[in-house]
Amino acid sequence: MTTEKFDAVSVATKANVYFDGKCVSHGITLADGTKKSVGVILPATLTFNTGAPEVMECVAGSCEYKLAGTSEWKKSAAGGKFSVPGNSSFEIRVTEAYHYICHFG
Amino acid sequence: MTTEKFDAVSVATKANVYFDGKCVSHGITLADGTKKSVGVILPATLTFNTGAPEVMECVAGSCEYKLAGTSEWKKSAAGGKFSVPGNSSFEIRVTEAYHYICHFG
Repeated sequence: MTTEKFDAVSVATKANVYFDGKCVSHGITLADGTKKSVGVILPATLTFNTGAPEVMECVAGSCEYKLAGTSEWKKSAAGGKFSVPGNSSFEIRVTEAYHYICHFG
Repeated sequence: MTTEKFDAVSVATKANVYFDGKCVSHGITLADGTKKSVGVILPATLTFNTGAPEVMECVAGSCEYKLAGTSEWKKSAAGGKFSVPGNSSFEIRVTEAYHYICHFG
């Protein structure tokens, strides 16, 4: 099961554009104040740094990812999630658009 | 004044990706059922076709646009809007990311 939509949220109209547009997201705030983002990563290999811990939930497409300090690429597809520690980083390889929800904390 | 956010909306988690990612948007549905999208167009010159009439509202960045049947490029920047008839098209030239709200109907 993928999360197809969020209801009763506030959405920022201005997108976050990273890596020349290879990653585009919009921030959302849930009714209880929880912040998340919904976005897409286009075909590319990118490295993201985390501040807060993150859970990346795939809603469509797929990716391969490798967490800092590990040597194994793992796959994540629609319905799958992976966790990234805070103050860390991960590499992500995308060959078909990877649509995601980023959960923080 | 730009519209920085929409409150109490439903947001689709999967993005709409057009023109190999030169345009990325997320669909939102307001409490009254009205559908809009929030998106960004990256540097490019693109042609969009409309089904329903659209109003394009710029929330950040800028663009130049030319409606079908006209020969004049006009500029739209943050806070500005332009209307596109239904079943028509417009060209858009973007040199800095153009962040927009698309209002339908």
